[in-house]
Amino acid sequence: MNMKQIEGGVTAPKGFEAAAAAAGIKYENRTDMALIYSKTPCSAAGTFTTNLVKAAPVKWDAGVVKNGGSVHAVIVNSGIANACTGQEGYGYCMETAEAAANALKIPAENVLVASTGVIGMQLPMERIKSGIQLLAASKNAQIESGTAAARAIMTTDTEKKEIAVRFELGGKEVTIGGMCKGSGMIHPNMCTMLAFLTTDAAISREMLQKALSADVKDTYNMISVDGDTSTNDTALLLANGLAGNPQITEENEDYHTFLKALNMVNTYLARKMAGDGEGATALFTVKVIHAETKEQAAVLAKSVITSSLTKAAIFGHDANWGRILCAMGYSGAQFDPEKVDLTFESAAGSMKIIADGVALDYSETEATRILSEEEVIVIADIKMGNAEATAWGCDLTYDYVKINADYRS
Amino acid sequence: MNMKQIEGGVTAPKGFEAAAAAAGIKYENRTDMALIYSKTPCSAAGTFTTNLVKAAPVKWDAGVVKNGGSVHAVIVNSGIANACTGQEGYGYCMETAEAAANALKIPAENVLVASTGVIGMQLPMERIKSGIQLLAASKNAQIESGTAAARAIMTTDTEKKEIAVRFELGGKEVTIGGMCKGSGMIHPNMCTMLAFLTTDAAISREMLQKALSADVKDTYNMISVDGDTSTNDTALLLANGLAGNPQITEENEDYHTFLKALNMVNTYLARKMAGDGEGATALFTVKVIHAETKEQAAVLAKSVITSSLTKAAIFGHDANWGRILCAMGYSGAQFDPEKVDLTFESAAGSMKIIADGVALDYSETEATRILSEEEVIVIADIKMGNAEATAWGCDLTYDYVKINADYRS
Repeated sequence: MNMKQIEGGVTAPKGFEAAAAAAGIKYENRTDMALIYSKTPCSAAGTFTTNLVKAAPVKWDAGVVKNGGSVHAVIVNSGIANACTGQEGYGYCMETAEAAANALKIPAENVLVASTGVIGMQLPMERIKSGIQLLAASKNAQIESGTAAARAIMTTDTEKKEIAVRFELGGKEVTIGGMCKGSGMIHPNMCTMLAFLTTDAAISREMLQKALSADVKDTYNMISVDGDTSTNDTALLLANGLAGNPQITEENEDYHTFLKALNMVNTYLARKMAGDGEGATALFTVKVIHAETKEQAAVLAKSVITSSLTKAAIFGHDANWGRILCAMGYSGAQFDPEKVDLTFESAAGSMKIIADGVALDYSETEATRILSEEEVIVIADIKMGNAEATAWGCDLTYDYVKINADYRS
Repeated sequence: MNMKQIEGGVTAPKGFEAAAAAAGIKYENRTDMALIYSKTPCSAAGTFTTNLVKAAPVKWDAGVVKNGGSVHAVIVNSGIANACTGQEGYGYCMETAEAAANALKIPAENVLVASTGVIGMQLPMERIKSGIQLLAASKNAQIESGTAAARAIMTTDTEKKEIAVRFELGGKEVTIGGMCKGSGMIHPNMCTMLAFLTTDAAISREMLQKALSADVKDTYNMISVDGDTSTNDTALLLANGLAGNPQITEENEDYHTFLKALNMVNTYLARKMAGDGEGATALFTVKVIHAETKEQAAVLAKSVITSSLTKAAIFGHDANWGRILCAMGYSGAQFDPEKVDLTFESAAGSMKIIADGVALDYSETEATRILSEEEVIVIADIKMGNAEATAWGCDLTYDYVKINADYRS
């Protein structure tokens, strides 16, 4: 099967347009609103934060997605999260959807909204509405517009995150595009901070949701920057069917091909979010192999990437493997500490550090060399079965503290 | 009831002696071994880490305590944790106990051992044995010896932590003394990093364990520095009965008086550990009130003190209350976010920041003034019932990262 990454992001699939605008929500001299628009109505799937404190746009979008209505457009703003804003904040979601509906000449209930930024502040609605006018006037299907949208949704991200993957279904060329933003308050549970995925594949709403829900578990739910599950986590997947492939309505071969392409997109974006975590200097990948179950492997891998001590050691390029075993030990998953092998791996090489729970006679200098690359991989072999899982995090740095000690000011 | 803090620590109760020695385990120019000794055999209670990866001394002590044997002495070293050291490491516990037994002329099975420091390194046994000789030769009952022992067990702690409390039981003067060390890898579960408690109270082993287990839940288990549950967490409570009070063998009034004094000692030490967390500039206290159950209040309070984002905001003296609500929201405990009141409190004053989940019109300048004190208190009123719980943590600072990025080097 031919499946390849192509240029662009959310506008790569047929019929999708995007735009970005500088609306002055909170930042100056940068874009802070984005629009994703489809020429024809889309089926929509979504996964949302499990935090009990849900931002207003999460409530709005979850309602739209659950009702199974078509989706025509998504309006996103950065700077203010519209979380902990009460009835007033929810009202602003409705007002945003209505303003977008008027500008785009579509029903308000076909508009999704998303916000990211400071919690507790109300949205400046006049600026939002002016921004929507700008977005509606400038939307187009160019690759550059997708990229501009990916830039507009950034908060403390240092780079835009987008990808598009092309493959074939029933002899037709199909594309999935995506963009996301991450950086802080990243410890998704059933979804991620903000990820927007578009596809021209023809697929029923039920199968679309099934595909997204399944894949989120292996991708966005396996990353963590700081262990804080956000109030705004949202992953949305829109499908407009314009590729003209035979519609996917069951778990056939086409579904699995679609799922594979979706996984390629989501894995790419998830890794980008982890590696661009607030203040991060390295992507920290932990793979647990030979587990009895995938769940067990996932719990162990996530425990290691969320350990502050381990993350600080990665920042220091220090092969402090005791902290890794310690984090596995308090994860709640069962294993025999005296059977664990740990290997460090990176572009600079690979080195087994402990075998059967006890340190080998390795060179600290060589270990530090391996740990000084942009992606550092730990492989934990727990010798119990054939399941495995991978989690992605980042190191803990001075800059993480700096960014978060005065994020609001 | 007269219950007051007096000078000293572990040597304050009758019959207890202590000593410190510079054995050169890992540090230079400082003491790194400590001895606690009782003239007469003690009943012993202990709580230990729930981490699946248990340090060798934890296994040794848990065995001794479970067997219900008498305890005569505790040997502690800092610098090396004797964790992830396999059979060899466990053998070193036995050797340490035997060396202490010979030097002190007591049975080896009456000696407890404890270690703290780097994981994965083996203990230099010749230095340990020389250290034991020094400890045995210099032990005495002076207040200063207890203080010296409290200093010798420090790792990245910036100050020694000890306390003694005196009260009356059945007309007899009874004392509980304690010392502990904390600082990093502090997120105790059923026990703390290292806490050593001594008392001259006469109390049965069963009631001693009951008192320790009950109180640990409200004290050491309610603190967190970095969310990492250590491999070495140990709290030991030794009672030699020399106060001559009527022995406590049931949950009578004397038991509750004893429990109250023990709580005073443990609360003091737990707060000291949290406030002296690695790199900390502030003690961060979170009190959840009007909960339905104490468990619910505890889960919510602990979730807030462990949130990296909230901890960084406290470092920045930033009233970023959205992060507090967010951390409550992902805690797993049920509550209605739209009913929560949040109040910030410190020596500089008190200020309600949100009422019923929405921000009040407060002064950021005044909030920052309140948040700039050495202890910052957040009170979350969830308006559901009459239970409450308090948790203690610290802020997340540049120095936490610095300390842990090169702890081993």
